[in-house]
Amino acid sequence: MTSTVHWNRGAVELIDQTRLPHHLETLRIETVESMVAAIKRLSVRGAPAIGVAGAFGVVLAMIEADPFTKPEEFDRLLQALRDARPTAVNLAHRVDQVAAVIGGGADAALAEAEAIRADEIRASRAMGDLGADLITELVASPRIRAMTICNTGGLATVERGTALAVIQTLHERGRLELAYPLETRPLLQGARLTTWELQQMEAPFRLVVDSAGPALISRGMVDVVLAGADRIAANGDSANKIGTYSLALASRADEVPFLIVAPESTVDRATVQGSDIEIEMRSEDEVTGFGSTRFAPSGAPALNPAFDVTPASLITAIVTDRRVVHTDRGERPA
Amino acid sequence: MTSTVHWNRGAVELIDQTRLPHHLETLRIETVESMVAAIKRLSVRGAPAIGVAGAFGVVLAMIEADPFTKPEEFDRLLQALRDARPTAVNLAHRVDQVAAVIGGGADAALAEAEAIRADEIRASRAMGDLGADLITELVASPRIRAMTICNTGGLATVERGTALAVIQTLHERGRLELAYPLETRPLLQGARLTTWELQQMEAPFRLVVDSAGPALISRGMVDVVLAGADRIAANGDSANKIGTYSLALASRADEVPFLIVAPESTVDRATVQGSDIEIEMRSEDEVTGFGSTRFAPSGAPALNPAFDVTPASLITAIVTDRRVVHTDRGERPA
Repeated sequence: MTSTVHWNRGAVELIDQTRLPHHLETLRIETVESMVAAIKRLSVRGAPAIGVAGAFGVVLAMIEADPFTKPEEFDRLLQALRDARPTAVNLAHRVDQVAAVIGGGADAALAEAEAIRADEIRASRAMGDLGADLITELVASPRIRAMTICNTGGLATVERGTALAVIQTLHERGRLELAYPLETRPLLQGARLTTWELQQMEAPFRLVVDSAGPALISRGMVDVVLAGADRIAANGDSANKIGTYSLALASRADEVPFLIVAPESTVDRATVQGSDIEIEMRSEDEVTGFGSTRFAPSGAPALNPAFDVTPASLITAIVTDRRVVHTDRGERPA
Repeated sequence: MTSTVHWNRGAVELIDQTRLPHHLETLRIETVESMVAAIKRLSVRGAPAIGVAGAFGVVLAMIEADPFTKPEEFDRLLQALRDARPTAVNLAHRVDQVAAVIGGGADAALAEAEAIRADEIRASRAMGDLGADLITELVASPRIRAMTICNTGGLATVERGTALAVIQTLHERGRLELAYPLETRPLLQGARLTTWELQQMEAPFRLVVDSAGPALISRGMVDVVLAGADRIAANGDSANKIGTYSLALASRADEVPFLIVAPESTVDRATVQGSDIEIEMRSEDEVTGFGSTRFAPSGAPALNPAFDVTPASLITAIVTDRRVVHTDRGERPA
């Protein structure tokens, strides 16, 4: 079983995701500085996984600088952890959660970080079970062909993940006929990471390019589509990796269930609707090539929206670690 | 102006598309054997361009083996030309068209091949004019933001192309605000070739990943979507590069005109509807990486449908070199 991040004898151990899928290597992180560097270079990625790494990072900070004899140095280390990925609000939240118990000493902080990690594993198991139960209700076929996008597996959390946790649970229940992971341009998290996780769990799959997703749905080759979410508005509109919207459109056209799977913390009550979500525009270089390979001619300009917004009207249900929100029956997450 | 293929002093000259976009090189082809090799390795691609190359290839064959003194050798050369890309029916058709006039000698054959080339240029100009006129009717805005997929430009024909010819005509008329070429995984014809052609015509553009297409349409950033076609069924259902269907779905959801632009020869009266079109499944290697770069882990299986089918019900109009078929008014191409 994949453990993306855990504490082991005085240090944090991380799967180095920059080396996957061709190399499986574990980094042993013993200082806040090296943790910040690992987060920045995406050796650990995915909001839940980054949050757990940050939680353990507070314990590293206590070992490096005693919060009571060197409070300024300790605070500086905590701020460096919070700032490692400024848009990942979960990271700052988890750092603060552990920082609140440092009065009890390093043991108390480590216990809090371990509790955060355990809760992420619980959440993934719950999403997997709720999602698989729902699919059993929605899909008549005993064997399920499930499409998914990006990497929403154990590598993005601690174990199992969100949307991919549902596919893993279907597989463990003997109900997975085939998974279709989309490659997920431009950063190819599907081709690099989701395929690797599917191999680890020995699940049957076929990798497809992103634009093949809607086409396979239209040809009756997909029973359910599962996507994660980066933010869910109060009305159920969901922001997720670019490409998610096209899958929801195709699912609706052929009456295939389309499910969003994300932890309860993803529901943002302060965001009324999807059009209030600002879309992050990332570097043009990600589009004009991959790694050191350049596809486009020199000087070709690009536009690189990282996310799109799927309206609640196209979502069959939102599955969190606590509940199923039946958006197709008019239910709303907040 | 791009001339993808032409006759020059006893030989065929081709832009070597395998070297684009980083190098612009012209191949000088003096034998049938080297023409067949150029077609096979995709130095020349696109049904109209391959057809013109084959037409000139017959003239090369006449120079190599006189059809009246060495008929067996000549027939062998013609068959090698026809078989260079077995699924490209246009190639065999163009070879036969020139072969029909060899009784008039090499000069007559060359004149026929030049007439074929000139007719392809005429067809591209006509599609550009008809398409740009139609967009003027359909879109209120004086400045047009046009999205397109794959490479449908002069590199796929002789000059100007099909869907990209419409964008070029809009640009020449001063009406193009911005083009959005999709990169077109897995072979990246959009990122490699369409960007290069847009640079040549000095048109403003932004390259985007395929899955960003539907998202940009949903955000009101696109005024018209233009796609080519590999085959158009009698009822108007159109097979084109994988990804086209997702653009048509998104266009319909936001009432953006979606146009198919293809020569009249693409209309296949023998195919009643889209579900009768067999979808070519190409090599898994195209999906698991690009060139020598491998994205997916070793042994990851993939599925690689080359085309999808867009139903006529999602197509606003089909523009050929002879007419506009208003599918949205119930008109059908055959």
